[in-house]
Amino acid sequence: MTLIDGKKIAAEIRSELKAEAADFQAKYAQQVGLAVVLVGEDAASQVYVRNKIRACEEVGIRSFAHFMPTDSTQKSVEDLVCALADDDRVHGILVQLPLPAHLDAERILSCIPRQKDVDGFSAANIGRLALDEEGTVACTPLGVMELLHRSGINVAGKRAVVVGRSKIVGRPMMLLLLNADATVTVCHSRTNELKRICSEADILIAAVGKPHFITADMVKQGAVVIDVGINRIDDKLAGDVDFDRVAPKTSFITPVPGGVGPMTIAMLLKNTLDCARRSVR
Amino acid sequence: MTLIDGKKIAAEIRSELKAEAADFQAKYAQQVGLAVVLVGEDAASQVYVRNKIRACEEVGIRSFAHFMPTDSTQKSVEDLVCALADDDRVHGILVQLPLPAHLDAERILSCIPRQKDVDGFSAANIGRLALDEEGTVACTPLGVMELLHRSGINVAGKRAVVVGRSKIVGRPMMLLLLNADATVTVCHSRTNELKRICSEADILIAAVGKPHFITADMVKQGAVVIDVGINRIDDKLAGDVDFDRVAPKTSFITPVPGGVGPMTIAMLLKNTLDCARRSVR
Repeated sequence: MTLIDGKKIAAEIRSELKAEAADFQAKYAQQVGLAVVLVGEDAASQVYVRNKIRACEEVGIRSFAHFMPTDSTQKSVEDLVCALADDDRVHGILVQLPLPAHLDAERILSCIPRQKDVDGFSAANIGRLALDEEGTVACTPLGVMELLHRSGINVAGKRAVVVGRSKIVGRPMMLLLLNADATVTVCHSRTNELKRICSEADILIAAVGKPHFITADMVKQGAVVIDVGINRIDDKLAGDVDFDRVAPKTSFITPVPGGVGPMTIAMLLKNTLDCARRSVR
Repeated sequence: MTLIDGKKIAAEIRSELKAEAADFQAKYAQQVGLAVVLVGEDAASQVYVRNKIRACEEVGIRSFAHFMPTDSTQKSVEDLVCALADDDRVHGILVQLPLPAHLDAERILSCIPRQKDVDGFSAANIGRLALDEEGTVACTPLGVMELLHRSGINVAGKRAVVVGRSKIVGRPMMLLLLNADATVTVCHSRTNELKRICSEADILIAAVGKPHFITADMVKQGAVVIDVGINRIDDKLAGDVDFDRVAPKTSFITPVPGGVGPMTIAMLLKNTLDCARRSVR
């Protein structure tokens, strides 16, 4: 069993991105820029946003942080996002979710042009993924593909099972794996025979959001298991996989924390750099 | 074994659509309109376009047929599509494919606004399907769902296997089945153990484009088999399914011709009416 060290791989990627961001700056006489919009005082969101800004600094991406009060009007947030859409220094725009309940998130997100949608959540970008065309892909599933790739795991022809069909993980994950020539099955709350289907997987992706949901009897001997779950039990993080019992059966497995998690921000930086590159093409 | 009679079901749908199109016209004082653009002299395309125009007439949808010469310039086709995009009488725009090789099809199709994209081929529309949001869905996979629905086949919780991952059938088919709560597997040319995976399907969708590709040993006793293939052998049509040997094992099966085929135009008419309805909302 090999533990996939997401922290180490993410650090390698950040170091590569740092060089690439410097190259971009040298070549085009402009710094790669990411705008981050946070509305309100949500504690977890503040931590995420701070981490994203710090990661930008580390790799030499300029961040434009916009903190707006909880009671911001729909129009004020839309106006800000539209201004960022027009700002040539900004190659990517990230609106931290969730937004306060009185705001219409969909309308605000629709102000982000596809070319600056670094989260890849827009219909236009997920549509391009569904058509296997170039575009921006959601950071977490993209991070999973990068973990597999950098661990030397080829997915072509393999049976991949994705458990969970959320818009930001399960669905783009399924499309990425399909585009990489895996034979993909998507399971969800309505699936019968979940155990049997999971136990056929060469590559099992758990994105359910239920701690220790994937148990050892659901995993084939020698499978690759990627745990996207981040669940809080008391004050500790737990994945969707019953790690201690599942790990001995696997060929590769990601831990939680330190597996997929660190990849998400690394992929956000990569997406920002990619948006910048496409903007000068 | 029950034969799913696509011809009969499509006729029922056209008859319903005729009443709905008349209702729309009475309520909004405008006729539902579909523009069809054909560039060049391709014989098969001319037949398809004629059939579409005739179907429009039958249900009371006004068709705007535009036949352009083979040597039309990129600009002239784009200008026409843009004019149709601005024409309030036109609720749906269909550009018959394939276009002559000297034209950039992607750029021409991108002139069709999402709201008039009755084929549902645009990234914006397939993205909405991938996010399970309202939009226009490609006619053939939509027709398959309608055949299942009108045959009383519930897909929720069932194992559905789609063989083929094309942009216009396999991929939207997979997303439709997922949105309808099936547990979906997509197989393709790189899939190993195709026979074993197919034989686990409660619902098997063949969209490969190879005559008689799906043989009896790939089909579970009692499965529902939907054959999207339309292959020409000598002068006869053959599906992707070895019908004579597969049919006895199935609970439901579509023939070729007379199964999925007739549904495609019926769904085009339905999509046009839906676009018209959304235009007045």
